Amino acid sequence: MPDIYIHGFGASVGAARELNDATALGQSEEDCLRITKKTGIHSRPVAAPNQYTSDLACSATTALLDQFAIAPTDVNALLVCTQTPDHLIPGVSSRVHGRLGFAQDCFVLDINQGCSGFILGTQAIAAWLGAHGGQGILVNADVYSRLVRPNDLTTRVIFGDAAAASLFSTRRQGLRVLYSRSFADGSGYEAFVARGSAVMQEEAVPRGIYMDGPGILNFALRAVPEAIAHAMRDMNLELRAIRKVLFHQANSFVVGQLARKLKLSEEQVPQNCAELGNTVSASIPLLLMEQMNLLHPGDLVLAVGFGVGLSWGVTLMERVVDSPSP
Amino acid sequence: MPDIYIHGFGASVGAARELNDATALGQSEEDCLRITKKTGIHSRPVAAPNQYTSDLACSATTALLDQFAIAPTDVNALLVCTQTPDHLIPGVSSRVHGRLGFAQDCFVLDINQGCSGFILGTQAIAAWLGAHGGQGILVNADVYSRLVRPNDLTTRVIFGDAAAASLFSTRRQGLRVLYSRSFADGSGYEAFVARGSAVMQEEAVPRGIYMDGPGILNFALRAVPEAIAHAMRDMNLELRAIRKVLFHQANSFVVGQLARKLKLSEEQVPQNCAELGNTVSASIPLLLMEQMNLLHPGDLVLAVGFGVGLSWGVTLMERVVDSPSP
Repeated sequence: MPDIYIHGFGASVGAARELNDATALGQSEEDCLRITKKTGIHSRPVAAPNQYTSDLACSATTALLDQFAIAPTDVNALLVCTQTPDHLIPGVSSRVHGRLGFAQDCFVLDINQGCSGFILGTQAIAAWLGAHGGQGILVNADVYSRLVRPNDLTTRVIFGDAAAASLFSTRRQGLRVLYSRSFADGSGYEAFVARGSAVMQEEAVPRGIYMDGPGILNFALRAVPEAIAHAMRDMNLELRAIRKVLFHQANSFVVGQLARKLKLSEEQVPQNCAELGNTVSASIPLLLMEQMNLLHPGDLVLAVGFGVGLSWGVTLMERVVDSPSP
Repeated sequence: MPDIYIHGFGASVGAARELNDATALGQSEEDCLRITKKTGIHSRPVAAPNQYTSDLACSATTALLDQFAIAPTDVNALLVCTQTPDHLIPGVSSRVHGRLGFAQDCFVLDINQGCSGFILGTQAIAAWLGAHGGQGILVNADVYSRLVRPNDLTTRVIFGDAAAASLFSTRRQGLRVLYSRSFADGSGYEAFVARGSAVMQEEAVPRGIYMDGPGILNFALRAVPEAIAHAMRDMNLELRAIRKVLFHQANSFVVGQLARKLKLSEEQVPQNCAELGNTVSASIPLLLMEQMNLLHPGDLVLAVGFGVGLSWGVTLMERVVDSPSP
């Protein structure tokens, strides 16, 4: 299979902003301080009432196309990873395809994964481009705010609505995908469920997201270091050789615990959830977008996703010397 | 990329059965006769009240694993194509993974496509196996009955609830995938929408499926012959060289119109929608499963999917002489 590269990113965030403060959350100042101290999340973008996943996905994709001066008709594959589509039928990718005017012979598909969605999406689009060639866009977009129950502070203070679009091809530019591996444990399905959100109606409980916070934390602290150790063994590398470890931005507490457990330096583990929150599968590409210009050729970057499903995985990338433009 | 083969299929259908007759539909005998004559659909499997997409997907997957005497832990990739998941979060593939006990290092993903979902799913899993090796299962499963509005006869009399599981690997056995190509036209998003089904609430209309029947028919009669002609040119073949053309079983009228337009013989175009209805993305693998034992080595089979999105595509396969078992 040919090498696959990630060239760059486009982003879009919800038009409204919610602060994790006493007024917005209807809690005491003291409780809000405790929340922001523990999560590291001070405010979050939230989709406006008339804003849906398709809107965020289109904005992020447009930003990406503009940045690289690419026409939509020159894109061969369009994958949208979301768990909060406008409709069950059709997928968000159809809407992006139609609104932005992609070509009819584009491979167009929605995929459904949560906080590991950038890792699995990267595998899916890299495999497709490896087989078919051309260039492709992976969009990670969600509006979890539409499924969070307002009175469930454990999830409400965490999630931000955003989209990231990432450009992939076989052209040597940006980040080379060296390695990607994903894992699943469906026996943990119940640890994070959006009840009443699709076909299964569950009248016993209000519609919305239900998270077993301690269960998810235990899973992350066990599974993520194992997956990283696995990748290091497979690639014959040590963690200190990795310039940046980009964890899914679950929240600062989780990322801090993982960094400590893995003995990573603060410099190795950038964070950006203070004003973005946990943007589900968009969090890793949004962080990569910020870090891209700080990387030097030869730098290794490890992206680590984990969450709902349960599903987790890692992708190792190397900043390359860009080929001269064609 | 190595050649990819489809070895066989497992199936599962909804536990209840609805007849397209006067009693079930609350219509006159005359109207029901007209409906069954035009659609060719006499009855359809319907999911029982406690039956969801995950249940059908698990049953079809179990049947497939049993048939090939494969342990779930020996499967490297599990894709579930559905538009009617139990929940938006997590996907159905997580539930299948957990219930059947797949291994943790399996690649597990839901994809969302409708009546073209076997074509796009085949491309996705073939690309992944081409890059990573091993064997994978594609499950196509839907319970559209949960989104059909009971008083909308144009859709209610058509859709059946079912699942098909298909086994793929690089081992020479069954059907070799020679060619696959998909197309999209998101400007036709509104032609088939399940309103109020996910995040976008639309209070002006009741929740459920809305289909522009004439629009979809015109699209199919225009786009499908073009896609087939495209494939024949790409592969330097004539349609008479194809032993079986397996159209998505939209209904007998649509399939008949396509066959006539393409001058295909009745023998070339098997149908099975009379007692299954339109089973969305499961319809092609369910038909392939029936035809598999009727094929001889060297026979060419063209699978043709089309529908919601809009999305359509073709996959050309050849029945091979199976390699001796390892």
